[in-house]
Amino acid sequence: MSDRIRGVLSPVVTPFDADLKPDAARLVRQCQWLLANDVGLAVFGTNSEANSLSTREKVELLDALAQAGIPGARMMPGTGCCALSDSVELSRKAVEVGAGGVLMLPPFYYKGVSDEGLFRNYAELIERVGDDRLRVYLYHIPQVSNVPITLTLIERLLKEFPGIIAGVKDSSGNWDNTKAMLDDFQPQGFDVFPGSETFLLAALRGGGAGCISATANVNPAAIAKLYNEWQNDDADAQQTGLDNIRDIFQGYVMIPALKAAVAHYGGDDDWARLRPPLVELTADERADLIKNLDAAGFSMPGLAG
Amino acid sequence: MSDRIRGVLSPVVTPFDADLKPDAARLVRQCQWLLANDVGLAVFGTNSEANSLSTREKVELLDALAQAGIPGARMMPGTGCCALSDSVELSRKAVEVGAGGVLMLPPFYYKGVSDEGLFRNYAELIERVGDDRLRVYLYHIPQVSNVPITLTLIERLLKEFPGIIAGVKDSSGNWDNTKAMLDDFQPQGFDVFPGSETFLLAALRGGGAGCISATANVNPAAIAKLYNEWQNDDADAQQTGLDNIRDIFQGYVMIPALKAAVAHYGGDDDWARLRPPLVELTADERADLIKNLDAAGFSMPGLAG
Repeated sequence: MSDRIRGVLSPVVTPFDADLKPDAARLVRQCQWLLANDVGLAVFGTNSEANSLSTREKVELLDALAQAGIPGARMMPGTGCCALSDSVELSRKAVEVGAGGVLMLPPFYYKGVSDEGLFRNYAELIERVGDDRLRVYLYHIPQVSNVPITLTLIERLLKEFPGIIAGVKDSSGNWDNTKAMLDDFQPQGFDVFPGSETFLLAALRGGGAGCISATANVNPAAIAKLYNEWQNDDADAQQTGLDNIRDIFQGYVMIPALKAAVAHYGGDDDWARLRPPLVELTADERADLIKNLDAAGFSMPGLAG
Repeated sequence: MSDRIRGVLSPVVTPFDADLKPDAARLVRQCQWLLANDVGLAVFGTNSEANSLSTREKVELLDALAQAGIPGARMMPGTGCCALSDSVELSRKAVEVGAGGVLMLPPFYYKGVSDEGLFRNYAELIERVGDDRLRVYLYHIPQVSNVPITLTLIERLLKEFPGIIAGVKDSSGNWDNTKAMLDDFQPQGFDVFPGSETFLLAALRGGGAGCISATANVNPAAIAKLYNEWQNDDADAQQTGLDNIRDIFQGYVMIPALKAAVAHYGGDDDWARLRPPLVELTADERADLIKNLDAAGFSMPGLAG
């Protein structure tokens, strides 16, 4: 269990070039900066615009990260797609590049699907990847996927695939649900990551493994610091500081706001680009965001230009 | 305009082999049977489990259909994916095999996206495919996609891409919305297809182009008959007959119910298989479905075994 990914991870934002193609070189630099700030790489998350990328594009990016020497042990790529065949291909690739785990959305097109159908999806995935190194983290984000990962489903998967089913990202924002996962499953070695640093201190006090958060893209060092110092006297004050920065970002559409901050503080405007259906902040929104961040003393030291 | 697809189309159910791979030979036979019953082929629709197939699998199936001599002019493949790059690849392939049109879901992962973002998605798609033969049918199915195609978006797209933006499938089940599309856009040559034969007669009386319906998979001849005879005196009686059969199917989860009927009446049990996250009907449900269909005098004459 000691090789498990723990701590703070970022669903790394994905840069696009002027032709809207993923920009591997910029992604590598961003990953290096996050690692230097003690934050792991949940590439291909919701905030990575992962579902705006084809499987082929994601496979190529994983190859580029591996070739650039990004350590697989610090990566938890999102590999859960609507199509089982895509999920299998991408998860195999993640294992091949040594990823510490894969973060798996349920198939999210069909609504009202049964736990039996979701169980079969994960079971087929695990059997088809067929590799003992596979570590599956379930991704519960019902407000976006509309397909919840229930406690009953987790219990069944844990029983059937102990060791392979490794944990969960709970992005529900419902602390009662995160708490139930911590109480019921964390003692079995099932690592619970809330989907926001808002719950980082509470999760760590409840035995959790860390967090996987959008704003770890922009505020990595401070979030990682709380992870490392959560037993210190100033932990609650640190949590308040993290919440203040997150609150600023939550005043805007999150993904374009993250990219606008990376573009501004890294001095690289190409970072502000998004793939449709997402759109960048307006000039006014961006100016407002930066003004608020500056006023809060926010910066992104060491971010490559 | 005379080359436009009109009439009744079926989101053709997709057969899977024992390894859950798409079964091209069975799909070809099903398409031939539907064509023989005067029903066009909206392959890769919601009821085709299209979003449980990878782009590569869909490209291979389009090749198989073309090689088997299925006429492109009778096909309206679903090509709208979450990733623009997938939508472009699949739409190019559809144009290459001579498809009469493509039926395009909006990118459906991110929720609350703006009309501006959706406009950019379709605009980028049209420009990247870059082929005058492309005919785009918008797919409005908000209860599944959670991303509606608004009247405002249609108006903007029609203005920007006249001729290319060819119509809509309205699966909302909201007749007021279908009626608004018929009133506002059908006179401009924008073909409105309700997503159920329940609205076929009303749509035709309002100038609509036909319908694209799940139950056209199992009841094609009768639905096509009403399309051809909608001005006859018995049209309302025909509509009632169609509604009765559809009501039976709606008593079950639709996709497994369609496949169970094809399996039973075609004498080919392999057809009952689904890809996770969908699951087949239970034995009791299937027996009940068949009992109800038999009692209604339902049959699927000529279906290949």
